[in-house]
Amino acid sequence: MAGNSFGEILRLTTFGESHGTAMGGVLDGMPAGVWIDVTAVQSALDRRRPGQNDITSPRKEMDRVQFLSGFHPEADELGQLQTLGTPIGFLIQNVDSHSADYAALKEQFRPSHADYSYQAKYGVRDHRGGGRSSARETVCRVVGGALAQQLLPQAIKIRAYVERMAGLGIPDGATYNMEDARNHPTGCPHAETAIAMENALIQRKEEGDTAGGVIACHVEGVPAGLGEPVFDKLQARLAYALMGINAAKGVEFGRGFAGAESRGSLENDVILSLGRTASNHSGGIQGGISTGMPLFMRLAFKPIASIKTPQQSVDHQGNPVIIQVDGRHDPAVLPRAMPIVEAMVALVLADFYLAQRHQTHSDV
Amino acid sequence: MAGNSFGEILRLTTFGESHGTAMGGVLDGMPAGVWIDVTAVQSALDRRRPGQNDITSPRKEMDRVQFLSGFHPEADELGQLQTLGTPIGFLIQNVDSHSADYAALKEQFRPSHADYSYQAKYGVRDHRGGGRSSARETVCRVVGGALAQQLLPQAIKIRAYVERMAGLGIPDGATYNMEDARNHPTGCPHAETAIAMENALIQRKEEGDTAGGVIACHVEGVPAGLGEPVFDKLQARLAYALMGINAAKGVEFGRGFAGAESRGSLENDVILSLGRTASNHSGGIQGGISTGMPLFMRLAFKPIASIKTPQQSVDHQGNPVIIQVDGRHDPAVLPRAMPIVEAMVALVLADFYLAQRHQTHSDV
Amino acid sequence: MAGNSFGEILRLTTFGESHGTAMGGVLDGMPAGVWIDVTAVQSALDRRRPGQNDITSPRKEMDRVQFLSGFHPEADELGQLQTLGTPIGFLIQNVDSHSADYAALKEQFRPSHADYSYQAKYGVRDHRGGGRSSARETVCRVVGGALAQQLLPQAIKIRAYVERMAGLGIPDGATYNMEDARNHPTGCPHAETAIAMENALIQRKEEGDTAGGVIACHVEGVPAGLGEPVFDKLQARLAYALMGINAAKGVEFGRGFAGAESRGSLENDVILSLGRTASNHSGGIQGGISTGMPLFMRLAFKPIASIKTPQQSVDHQGNPVIIQVDGRHDPAVLPRAMPIVEAMVALVLADFYLAQRHQTHSDV
Amino acid sequence: MAGNSFGEILRLTTFGESHGTAMGGVLDGMPAGVWIDVTAVQSALDRRRPGQNDITSPRKEMDRVQFLSGFHPEADELGQLQTLGTPIGFLIQNVDSHSADYAALKEQFRPSHADYSYQAKYGVRDHRGGGRSSARETVCRVVGGALAQQLLPQAIKIRAYVERMAGLGIPDGATYNMEDARNHPTGCPHAETAIAMENALIQRKEEGDTAGGVIACHVEGVPAGLGEPVFDKLQARLAYALMGINAAKGVEFGRGFAGAESRGSLENDVILSLGRTASNHSGGIQGGISTGMPLFMRLAFKPIASIKTPQQSVDHQGNPVIIQVDGRHDPAVLPRAMPIVEAMVALVLADFYLAQRHQTHSDV
Repeated sequence: MAGNSFGEILRLTTFGESHGTAMGGVLDGMPAGVWIDVTAVQSALDRRRPGQNDITSPRKEMDRVQFLSGFHPEADELGQLQTLGTPIGFLIQNVDSHSADYAALKEQFRPSHADYSYQAKYGVRDHRGGGRSSARETVCRVVGGALAQQLLPQAIKIRAYVERMAGLGIPDGATYNMEDARNHPTGCPHAETAIAMENALIQRKEEGDTAGGVIACHVEGVPAGLGEPVFDKLQARLAYALMGINAAKGVEFGRGFAGAESRGSLENDVILSLGRTASNHSGGIQGGISTGMPLFMRLAFKPIASIKTPQQSVDHQGNPVIIQVDGRHDPAVLPRAMPIVEAMVALVLADFYLAQRHQTHSDV
Repeated sequence: MAGNSFGEILRLTTFGESHGTAMGGVLDGMPAGVWIDVTAVQSALDRRRPGQNDITSPRKEMDRVQFLSGFHPEADELGQLQTLGTPIGFLIQNVDSHSADYAALKEQFRPSHADYSYQAKYGVRDHRGGGRSSARETVCRVVGGALAQQLLPQAIKIRAYVERMAGLGIPDGATYNMEDARNHPTGCPHAETAIAMENALIQRKEEGDTAGGVIACHVEGVPAGLGEPVFDKLQARLAYALMGINAAKGVEFGRGFAGAESRGSLENDVILSLGRTASNHSGGIQGGISTGMPLFMRLAFKPIASIKTPQQSVDHQGNPVIIQVDGRHDPAVLPRAMPIVEAMVALVLADFYLAQRHQTHSDV
Repeated sequence: MAGNSFGEILRLTTFGESHGTAMGGVLDGMPAGVWIDVTAVQSALDRRRPGQNDITSPRKEMDRVQFLSGFHPEADELGQLQTLGTPIGFLIQNVDSHSADYAALKEQFRPSHADYSYQAKYGVRDHRGGGRSSARETVCRVVGGALAQQLLPQAIKIRAYVERMAGLGIPDGATYNMEDARNHPTGCPHAETAIAMENALIQRKEEGDTAGGVIACHVEGVPAGLGEPVFDKLQARLAYALMGINAAKGVEFGRGFAGAESRGSLENDVILSLGRTASNHSGGIQGGISTGMPLFMRLAFKPIASIKTPQQSVDHQGNPVIIQVDGRHDPAVLPRAMPIVEAMVALVLADFYLAQRHQTHSDV
Repeated sequence: MAGNSFGEILRLTTFGESHGTAMGGVLDGMPAGVWIDVTAVQSALDRRRPGQNDITSPRKEMDRVQFLSGFHPEADELGQLQTLGTPIGFLIQNVDSHSADYAALKEQFRPSHADYSYQAKYGVRDHRGGGRSSARETVCRVVGGALAQQLLPQAIKIRAYVERMAGLGIPDGATYNMEDARNHPTGCPHAETAIAMENALIQRKEEGDTAGGVIACHVEGVPAGLGEPVFDKLQARLAYALMGINAAKGVEFGRGFAGAESRGSLENDVILSLGRTASNHSGGIQGGISTGMPLFMRLAFKPIASIKTPQQSVDHQGNPVIIQVDGRHDPAVLPRAMPIVEAMVALVLADFYLAQRHQTHSDV
C-alpha cells in the first residue's frame, strides 16, 4: 500500500519526483495483441502539457513519452505497435526544472500544499517543485489512461469537460457539444461561458490569485455489468481513482448531492426496456454495477494553492515565516486536468472490462 | 477484484446474501495483543439494527455477532478478549427473512435497484431481498469497523451524524453536540432539526415515499502523516470506502464543492504552528496525507428506491410490467447508515495507521 | 500480507484455530453459473479426515462442510447448486477438541513445532492443539480446492499419490495406476509398496516415532499457456502453494534435483509437434508457462514432529524442560495430505485459468 | 496477476524484453530515511554480469543501473543517498543486443525454451533473445534485492554459493568459507571442487553442451518471528521467489528431501534455549516462521537449454525443423545466478521484516 500502483488486473505503477531525472511508469496486465496508436498517447499528453496559452504555466517541457518495452518491434502500415502481453515501461524526461525557484522553500511549509504533511509522514522530502506531491506525476496517469482507452471497445467514449470554473458555470438548459471542450483553452464546451471563464482566469492571474471549479465526465457506450459488488462498486472505484487526482475535493455520480434532497418517487429511474431507463438520475450505475446507460460524474477541484500573495506559515522548527510562492503556476488546474480525469476513468473501466471476462462461466 | 475484500494490511472480507443462511466475514491483519471489548462491537451493530422505531423497518433480527476465531480463549477481568494476530472469523445469522415477499419479483427488475445490473453481469441472481446487493451486507462492515476502531489510538474519535434529510438540514451557525446524533432516531444531533426530520420521514412513509440526505463525518485526533502519495491519498481511500456504501451518490472533503467556487487566497489554510492551521477548509488533508487537523467529509445518499407507488419496468424478457414493491423498507437509509460510515472510516484509518509503521526507517 | 488468503482472481481466505469454535473460509472470485456438486466437496474432505484406520489419528470429527452463501437457492435435479458469482462462505465446526491434552504445554515449546516461532512473532498464542499452526486449517484448503476443481475443465485431472514414505518407495519401473492411490490407506498406488509402507507406519507408531516421505502429483489435460512471466511462473505459484502446506520441506518439478546433475543434450525435451515433446523432463512447464504436456511435481514432507519419546526443550522463560507430547497424532502426514496437495494445485490452476481469459485481446 | 510484480509491502515491478530499449523497474514501499550505498547496488549487478571469464557468455553489456527517482538529491559525505519513501525507478540500458542472431528462430520453437509456451499463451512474442522470457530480466531483481538488503539489519547476512555443478559437488564434511564463493568464477567456495567444476564447464562448452547444478543459500542473523501463518509461510514465499528464477526446477529447506527419508526422533530439533536448537534440520523455519536459527535452502537448476547440437523441433505451423542455436550462451547458469538468489531472498526477508512492524500491538 505504498500508493503508487492503481488497478487490479490492468495495473499502472508510477514513479518520479517533479524535479528529478524523469517521470515514468509501468502498465502491467495489458492483454497481448492490442494494436496501439502511439501518437494518440502523445496527443493525450499534449493536452495536459503546460505552457500552451495565457492561462497555463509557461513551463515548456516537451513531455515526450518514450516506450521502453511491451511492444512487438514491428509496426503495422499505420505505424501502430502490437502489445506483447508483457509490461509496458515508459519514461517522460524532466527537462525544464527551475529548482532554484524553490530554494527558499526548503525548510518552509507552503499553506495548503503537501509540504507539511509529507515532512510529518516521512521525515524527509524533496522540496523542489513539490517532489512526489507535484501534479507533474499525472503525466504517467495520462500515458496509462491513453493505453487503457485503446483496449476498451471503441463504442466507449469518455469525455471530460469544464462545467464550472472561477465561480462561473454553463447555464442550465444551455446546449453544447461535449467534444468542443477540446477546442477552447478553458476546456469549457459552451463557447459563451468559456470566454467568460477565460477572462475571469486572466484576471485572477493578474491578481496573483487562483480559481477552482468542477469537471464533468460523461461516458457513453459502457455495457451493463461492469463493476463489482460490495466494496468495489463502479462508483467506489471511480471515486477512488478521481479523488486521487491532485486538488480534487469532491465527487458525485448522477444527480449526486442534488438527488439527496429529492424523494424516491421522483428520483427512481423507471425502466423502459432492458438496459434503458426513462431518466438517468443514477448516472448509469445501480448497485455499483453499470446499467448500460451513460455514466455521468462530476469532480470538484479546489483553487490552486500557489498564490502570489504573501501568506503566514511556519518553518521546519515551527517558527513563523511569511511565504511568497514564486515559480510558474496556473490560475486553475482544471483545463489541464481534463485528460487526467479521462485517463483515470479509462483505467477503471479497462480494469472492470477485463475482470468481466472471468465473472461468468463460459466453459460448459 | 471480486470486490468482497477491503483494505491492504487490515483486510475485511465479507460474504452473505440477504436471505441466505448467514452473513459473515474475516478480518485479517489485526495485530496480536489488542484487547477487544466485544460488547462494543455488538453495540455498533445494535445502532445499525432495523426495527427500533417508527422510521426504520420492522425486520426484527437480533443481529448477534458470533466470533469464531482470532481471540485467545481467556478473557480478562473486564471480559475483553485478546487478539492472536490470526484472522478473526465472524457470523451473523439471517433469522427473519420473509423471502415469500419477493416471489413476485423473481423475474422482474425493480427500478433503481441492482436487479437488472446484477442479472446483466452474472446471468443469475438470488432475487430474494436483493441477495448480495442488499444493504444487509453492511452488518459485516460494522463488525469489521468496530474492531478496527479498537485498534486505533483512543484519541481518534470518529463521529458521523445526519446533517440533511428529506430536504431539511441543520441551519448554518446552529450549535449542537455531534455526540447527540446517537440520541435521536434520525441521527441528527440538532434537536429542533431532528424533530422536523422525523416528522418529514413519518409523512414520507405514509405517502409510500422515501427521502435522501447527507451524513457528515468528523474525525478528531488523527495524527499528521496518514495516507499515501498519488493513488492512495487519504481522501481517495476514504472516497473509495464511503462510495461503496449502498445508496451513496457523492462525497466531499473539507469545503468540497463549495470550495471549488472560491479563490486560493480565501481557501488556503494558513499555518499557525506545526500541525495547526487557522482554517480547515481542506478537511484535514493536504497532498492526500493527514495534516493533524480534524478530518471532515460529507456523504450524499439518494432516496431509498423501494417506494410503495406502482412503477413502470420490464421483466427478464423485456416485457413491460408494473412493479409494486412490498416488503419492509425504511423511508430513509441515513439513520442506520451512520455506524456504517463510521465503520468504513475506521477501516481506512486503521489500514493507514498500520501502514505508517513501516513508512520510515526506525532501524538505524 | 497477513497470510490467510491465497490466489489473485480466485481467492481463498481462511480462518480458525484448531480448538476454537470452527474453521471456515471464503472463496471469492468464483464465476457465476458454475454448477457445483456439493457432495464432491464433502468427499474430498472425507479423504482428508482423521480417524479412518490404523495409521491415522483417532480424532473423530465429522468435518461436515456447511455452505453459507454464494449459491442460488434452487438445486437442479442432480442436487447441484449454481454459483451466483458472489463469495462462497463456508464453515466446518470443531467438535472433538481434547484441549485438556494440551494444558501441560501452555508455557512450553514443543521441538520442531511452531510453538516458539509463533510466541516470538506474536507475543501471545493459542497453545491448544497448535492453534492456527495446526494442520487442521487445511480442511478449508480442501473445500476451496474442491470448488476450484469443479471450475476447471473436466479434462484437467489432478492426481496426487504417495511415492515414498518411511524410507520406502515405489520401485523404479514399477507399473501402477495413479487412481489406486485412493484405494489404500497409505495413499500409495503400488499395492506391494503400499503394504510395506503400512507395516512400516504401524511399527513407527508402536515405537512412538514418525515418518516422512514424498507425495508426487501428476496433472493431465492442462492446456498450453497457463502461468505468467517472471515472478508468477507456474512452478513458482505451485511451489508457493505447496510449500505452504504444513511439514512440506521441498518441492521439485519434472526431473528437479536429478535433472540438475545432467546435461542439456540429455535434458532438453525435443519437440515432436505443437504441444507435444518426446520427453517431459521439464514437468510440463517452460519459461514458467504450461506447455500442454502433463504437469509433474514432487513434494517432500518431514516426519511428523509429535513423537512420544521425551524431548529436551525450554519453557516461556527459557528454563529447560522435558517434553512428552500426548494427544492424538498420526505416524505420517502423507496419506491425509494428498487431497490437500490436490486442492492447492487446483487453486493455482483455476487462478491461472481465469487469468488467461484476459491475457489476449478478443475484442477486435 | 500479470506476474511482473513481487512483494506485498516492499514491491518490485519490472519490465523489459531482452533486445528492447532497456530493462527497468520500480521498487515501491521502501521506507523513507534509509541511506543507500549506490555502489553496492552496482557491485551486485557486476557479479551477475556476463562476459567476465571463460565460463560466462561474452555479451559485453556494462549493465549500469541508473536511478530515476526515490532519493533525496543531496548525498552524504560517503556518497550515500537517502530514500524519500517514494518509489525508486531505475533503468539498465540494453546495449549489446545481437538481434540478428535470432532471425532464423523467428518462427521456430527452441526445445526446452519458453518459445512455444509464450506463443501459445499470447499469440505473439518478441523472439529476439527470448524477449521477456530471457534471464536478462533478472538484472532488475538484482537491483531490487540489493536495495532490499540495505534496508535489512546488517546482522542479516545472505550468502549463496554453488554447491553442485556439472555433476560435481562439495564433498561431505569438507570445510570452506562461504564468502569465498565470490572469489572464484564458478561460485563454488571450496577451491578444489571449484577447479574441477571449472574444468568440467570448459569441457561442456567445447562439446557445445551445458550443465546444471545446485545453489545453496545460507542466511544468518534472521530474528525469530518472520513469516506468516498458513499461505505465506516463510518457506512458501522463499520457494515462490526462488522458483521464479529462470531454470530453477526444485527447492528444499533444511534437510529437505533427505529429511523426508528419516524419522521424527532423529529429525526434530531439540531446543536448547530460547531461539537456539541443537540441530537445525528445519533450516531455521518452524510453522512457516523463522526460529532465530540460520536459514538454509538449496535450489536446483536444470542445464541451460541452449546447446550447440542440432535438435528436432517444429515451426509455428507445426512443421518439423532442425534447430541449431547460435548466439552467446553460458555452459551453466549457476555462477551468475548467485546474486539473483541473494536478491530474491533479500526481497522476501525485507517484505516480512516490514510486515513484522505491524504484527503486534505497540500502542497501548
